[in-house]
Amino acid sequence: MDKEDVVFSPVSEEYLATDFPGHIFAGMFCIIYSLWESTKSILKHLLKKKKYTYGFGSKTLFYRLEILQGIVILSLAATGIIVSLTLSGGHHLPLYEENHWNKLKDWHHVTVYLFIGMIGVAHILCFTISSVPVSLIKLMVSTAFFVETFIFHNHTHSRVLLDIFMHQLVGLISFLNGLVAFIDFLIQDNVLLELLRSSFTLLQGSWFFQIAYVLFPPKGSPIWDLMDYENSRFLTVCFCWHFALTYIIIGANYAFISWLIKFRSKKPCSSEVGLLKNTEHEQELEEM
Amino acid sequence: MDKEDVVFSPVSEEYLATDFPGHIFAGMFCIIYSLWESTKSILKHLLKKKKYTYGFGSKTLFYRLEILQGIVILSLAATGIIVSLTLSGGHHLPLYEENHWNKLKDWHHVTVYLFIGMIGVAHILCFTISSVPVSLIKLMVSTAFFVETFIFHNHTHSRVLLDIFMHQLVGLISFLNGLVAFIDFLIQDNVLLELLRSSFTLLQGSWFFQIAYVLFPPKGSPIWDLMDYENSRFLTVCFCWHFALTYIIIGANYAFISWLIKFRSKKPCSSEVGLLKNTEHEQELEEM
Amino acid sequence: MDKEDVVFSPVSEEYLATDFPGHIFAGMFCIIYSLWESTKSILKHLLKKKKYTYGFGSKTLFYRLEILQGIVILSLAATGIIVSLTLSGGHHLPLYEENHWNKLKDWHHVTVYLFIGMIGVAHILCFTISSVPVSLIKLMVSTAFFVETFIFHNHTHSRVLLDIFMHQLVGLISFLNGLVAFIDFLIQDNVLLELLRSSFTLLQGSWFFQIAYVLFPPKGSPIWDLMDYENSRFLTVCFCWHFALTYIIIGANYAFISWLIKFRSKKPCSSEVGLLKNTEHEQELEEM
Amino acid sequence: MDKEDVVFSPVSEEYLATDFPGHIFAGMFCIIYSLWESTKSILKHLLKKKKYTYGFGSKTLFYRLEILQGIVILSLAATGIIVSLTLSGGHHLPLYEENHWNKLKDWHHVTVYLFIGMIGVAHILCFTISSVPVSLIKLMVSTAFFVETFIFHNHTHSRVLLDIFMHQLVGLISFLNGLVAFIDFLIQDNVLLELLRSSFTLLQGSWFFQIAYVLFPPKGSPIWDLMDYENSRFLTVCFCWHFALTYIIIGANYAFISWLIKFRSKKPCSSEVGLLKNTEHEQELEEM
Repeated sequence: MDKEDVVFSPVSEEYLATDFPGHIFAGMFCIIYSLWESTKSILKHLLKKKKYTYGFGSKTLFYRLEILQGIVILSLAATGIIVSLTLSGGHHLPLYEENHWNKLKDWHHVTVYLFIGMIGVAHILCFTISSVPVSLIKLMVSTAFFVETFIFHNHTHSRVLLDIFMHQLVGLISFLNGLVAFIDFLIQDNVLLELLRSSFTLLQGSWFFQIAYVLFPPKGSPIWDLMDYENSRFLTVCFCWHFALTYIIIGANYAFISWLIKFRSKKPCSSEVGLLKNTEHEQELEEM
Repeated sequence: MDKEDVVFSPVSEEYLATDFPGHIFAGMFCIIYSLWESTKSILKHLLKKKKYTYGFGSKTLFYRLEILQGIVILSLAATGIIVSLTLSGGHHLPLYEENHWNKLKDWHHVTVYLFIGMIGVAHILCFTISSVPVSLIKLMVSTAFFVETFIFHNHTHSRVLLDIFMHQLVGLISFLNGLVAFIDFLIQDNVLLELLRSSFTLLQGSWFFQIAYVLFPPKGSPIWDLMDYENSRFLTVCFCWHFALTYIIIGANYAFISWLIKFRSKKPCSSEVGLLKNTEHEQELEEM
Repeated sequence: MDKEDVVFSPVSEEYLATDFPGHIFAGMFCIIYSLWESTKSILKHLLKKKKYTYGFGSKTLFYRLEILQGIVILSLAATGIIVSLTLSGGHHLPLYEENHWNKLKDWHHVTVYLFIGMIGVAHILCFTISSVPVSLIKLMVSTAFFVETFIFHNHTHSRVLLDIFMHQLVGLISFLNGLVAFIDFLIQDNVLLELLRSSFTLLQGSWFFQIAYVLFPPKGSPIWDLMDYENSRFLTVCFCWHFALTYIIIGANYAFISWLIKFRSKKPCSSEVGLLKNTEHEQELEEM
Repeated sequence: MDKEDVVFSPVSEEYLATDFPGHIFAGMFCIIYSLWESTKSILKHLLKKKKYTYGFGSKTLFYRLEILQGIVILSLAATGIIVSLTLSGGHHLPLYEENHWNKLKDWHHVTVYLFIGMIGVAHILCFTISSVPVSLIKLMVSTAFFVETFIFHNHTHSRVLLDIFMHQLVGLISFLNGLVAFIDFLIQDNVLLELLRSSFTLLQGSWFFQIAYVLFPPKGSPIWDLMDYENSRFLTVCFCWHFALTYIIIGANYAFISWLIKFRSKKPCSSEVGLLKNTEHEQELEEM
């Protein structure tokens, strides 16, 4: 599943074909997860601010949704595991054969998916069994991202410059994501921290797309010189632009949901553009 | 006590024999300590949640148990020190003789055991003298793991690839363990943090077993090629699986103790599988 | 915009001319921002301590000032972007031409200014729309400094010793600045943390001046040997003296504003030199 | 003031003579500072626990003592600066002469003493001017240790193995010391954190003694082979033993002061050895 294989293996053509969708799949997963999580965080924050009280029905719905989320994560992780082990290069389930390890990189991917699956399990457990502490989900998310960092750190051996650089950046984001998730686990109830986390996940998703187009260009796309140092310097800038974009997307989501709540509640809302008269917000500003 | 000695020393055979049990001893120590600590944390958390009040008798029992734990840790550490200095290669108590340092690696192990012994001392002091702050135990645990990290960081010189890699991973876990113990020392009273700590200790224990079987295979086990880079890549994956396993074991322990408390209290318990009706848990979920 | 270009490009003379003011511009920006921010923090802290209540008029003024600050930051960032892209070497807006990336270092600078501009946007949003959490500004500041660190870390390739060393130090300060801003974002309302942040920003500003004079000496200034290791050792010391100086400047600002408030309030003030009789301060001292 | 100078300079004999006392001076400074600070922390903690209320007289005495401490630190730092610049090799006050920097390492030491002097200034300011936040002292301590780390990190160029290793360890302790001081600055009022800080300072002091005896052995002491890797491995162990010793010394100080307070208050004290009956301590234990 890497450049090296492309060079030395006779099945390189077919390999490329399965590798491009692999990164697109991971990217889509991150982007959808991020948008879903950010929407949830923003909704919760805004409804709490308005002291909106849920009826029993909406609560049940909310719990059912969380359990559903757990099931979706679990099944996507399972899909990832199965695809990694079967599609990319045929039947290589036995890990060790003929005196060497078999397709270790696929097992790296399997391990990452395994820990993502455990996030799904945590979701299901926390919302079905009451004695499980609910911050388990955040701890599990943090663990999954740190394990991903660990795997990616030991994943880039004997690859070419650009391949290493781009995967190191994935390692950097997943480390930051794990760190912010851990801080969120310790502190709780800080909406910006949750949105920062969503923003990192979105960045990881969009970066997987970039990787797919740079390292495994589909027919018609320009081919990148993977050994050119200049390219890595451009990608540094590019990475920051992706990051700025995620802030804008999450911000737009925030604005959209604010507008939606205001529109549906049909009450004159205090979030009008202009100098503020809202006392609660003023207190917050003074405490800043 | 390392590969290097195996190659250059005439007593290699005998050396191997003492080194395999050395890692098994350390592994057993970690595993038992971890299971004991996790059981204690879970029991305390669940009883506190049920607002269970201890009678005077059970409190006295609890203190006696803590002091006993201190004594057990202290005696195991003493055993470790004595065995390191006497059994592995005979009488080399004098540190410096004939112009060179004598068996420095054993002294490295002795130092680690010394700090583990200090955890035992902290246990005994905190539960017998009331003016000692009780968080001393956690500070001492954190210190012991950081010292272990420091020792392991300066422990791997002139070894072979796989030996270095596996001991670096021990250093990584003990660093994380020290870090989590320090955060726990600062924050207090977060059950998941304590279980995370137990989980890292369990991981360290099971990894010592893995080291024993990879670096010092007993008769009948397969011999690993210690210079093969592929092996180190497999062990990366393997390490993560160990980690996932520790989560499952600690989780199973949690489930078992929950069930035990529910079974013994003979009250209809709210932790039934299904959508939650428990108000306290709901509050927690909303605050999330 | 670096030494390398000076050596290989025929427009080096003109280049030097644009590079010296570039660093002076960045330095001035940091110094003014730092002094403004520190003045604001000190004022808020001292007025809050005196339980001074703002009238409605002063509040409106305060909000207008914050929005003004946002607009100023935004326009300076825009200036930085435009100057980076147009003045230094003419028209090179197309990023990619003739098979190589065009003036990537300028795009690095543009990216840094982009994130600084986002601080300005956060200022404007937080003080015009009430549903935006006010700590967004601090998160944005932290993000901008971390992105700057990231850019500078990948910015120093193929330069000479002193150039690398001085830019690494900029990276170090911006990392520390980002870290302290993030802690400030999490903790809130610690005046010393805010002043520490101002102090780092001031240090960065004065260090940009130092860089301008060392790497791009204007006519009449002594020329530094950029390959001399001794110079880097002197600059280590020099950096610490800059740091000490920032503490002194921020401290002098604190003293000046204290005196100003005392002078204007015309009340006998408790901040007299001598043994303290102030009860509030005594409490603080006991809690220390 | 390092090995390198010893080899190349004709005044090496005299140099050794000034370098040994230089490290002994720094070591004594750290040890006395550490013992004084730990005594203060323990006293405050135990008196607060006993809800002991100071009379007006003892408070005035306490403030005077703090100011005295500031003056002592300031004058010791001044001594350090003057000695570094004048005694070690005569009159070399001009920093730059004959096209090279003059005795840069002495200026490194001067910078460290400068920041230590600023701790003294903070002490004096906080206890004479009431508008200064009292946590300034802790921030200043943290800054001084981080600056020391920065200086030591850039201090070890072109030295021999053992010299580098021992100074790296000084860098490590001063980094940890700065970190713990910063956490203490953020959290406040955790006696164990303050004692941990004292323990690190004590470790630094005793390590300076070790450095003096290893790198600049006085007549009669054994000469160490500074290029021998085995020695560095022994010093790793040795460093940990120093660390364990500092815990024991701080612990003994705690026990001694506890006993002194109990002895002077002549009340039957609850800190008797045996199972606890103290309710406050029990609460603490339950919360653990």
